Amino acid sequence: MPPKKAIVLVSGGLDSATVLAKAQHEGFECYALSFDYGQRHRAELQAAKRVASLLQAKEHRIIHLGIGALGGSALTDSTLPVPHYSGSHDIPLTYVPARNTIFLAIALGWAEILQAQDIFIGISAIDYSGYPDCRPEFIHAFEKLATIATKAGVEGKHCHIHAPLSHLSKAETIRLGTQLGVDYSQTLSCYSATDAGLACGHCDSCTFRRQGFEAAGIPDPTSYVNS
Amino acid sequence: MPPKKAIVLVSGGLDSATVLAKAQHEGFECYALSFDYGQRHRAELQAAKRVASLLQAKEHRIIHLGIGALGGSALTDSTLPVPHYSGSHDIPLTYVPARNTIFLAIALGWAEILQAQDIFIGISAIDYSGYPDCRPEFIHAFEKLATIATKAGVEGKHCHIHAPLSHLSKAETIRLGTQLGVDYSQTLSCYSATDAGLACGHCDSCTFRRQGFEAAGIPDPTSYVNS
Repeated sequence: MPPKKAIVLVSGGLDSATVLAKAQHEGFECYALSFDYGQRHRAELQAAKRVASLLQAKEHRIIHLGIGALGGSALTDSTLPVPHYSGSHDIPLTYVPARNTIFLAIALGWAEILQAQDIFIGISAIDYSGYPDCRPEFIHAFEKLATIATKAGVEGKHCHIHAPLSHLSKAETIRLGTQLGVDYSQTLSCYSATDAGLACGHCDSCTFRRQGFEAAGIPDPTSYVNS
Repeated sequence: MPPKKAIVLVSGGLDSATVLAKAQHEGFECYALSFDYGQRHRAELQAAKRVASLLQAKEHRIIHLGIGALGGSALTDSTLPVPHYSGSHDIPLTYVPARNTIFLAIALGWAEILQAQDIFIGISAIDYSGYPDCRPEFIHAFEKLATIATKAGVEGKHCHIHAPLSHLSKAETIRLGTQLGVDYSQTLSCYSATDAGLACGHCDSCTFRRQGFEAAGIPDPTSYVNS
């Protein structure tokens, strides 16, 4: 039997690299999917290419999405500053409205074209920024929608959304990826990285990442601007 | 009180023009949203601009989506022919996988940015081509997802997806739009229209439209290639 195909959302960051390694480890033939959506941290697309290549995805597509023009987030609107980590529980300025819904919807379209019934996404409900579309109930609701929305679903071929990091802390994710051979020096998590791929060290994403390496007892291979 | 805002998906076709007129008639301040997704029938974007302008949408955005590169549909893949109407109940080649899921996801993002809680879409479960994402159960599933996926939903501001044509035949839609003052000569429904906006007269979409005008007893203002 040929291997089962899976679409894997790959941002170029630590989480999605771990998820790609996990999907490969589970025997899926992986189709990596990234988005150029006007994000300021464009260097992450270069990281996504490196990650897809190093972890031997079968294919890697970068899809252009003009959603940045709608504004509303510090990640796509250059007039808004990327905030430093504050520890607040409010939903921060870096939230891109409906981003995971949009990304999963396009993954669902590609899955249907490839006749894949599995989609992997690296969201976590722990050590995250309080985004509503990172919660397990969001994944469950999307899975239900996927079954109703597609030709495959109508024909009884249900789509499974895998969120294997959902209940892992950042440290647990890093330990998992390290076991699976992920080279985290090639990933980029920073919300305001330089074009050369150096991380700021101060945004939410950098903060969670650095704390994760510390908690995991694994040296942090990230290249920071001031280091 | 300021008018309530609504996002209205506007393709440039007959259905979405009717929906925009209906949303305006109901007193919403309408934000028209169209997509340039690599569709062959690019002339529909010109029609979308005319429709948004004639029906006085507050704003009109055309968002570029690179999903055509994923292939899988005769509407975006120029190597596949657009089929003539066959009357078959199978899902046809013109089906774009997960298209309405993707369009609604982006509408949801814009709605959150504008603090709108209403999205209008011109899908119908009657006189359509058997697409799974045109059924009322799809709309219900998306509405549930929207509540869970967004900051607004988490804060108790539920998003309503309006599909006012859901149970209307094409003839009923045309009668409704005519009452609301829609100028259908400015709309374009054809899947393989010429760049100048002439309709082929033979695809599913042309066939449903022509039959709709006949059944409504209203002269068909469409400009066909051979007429």
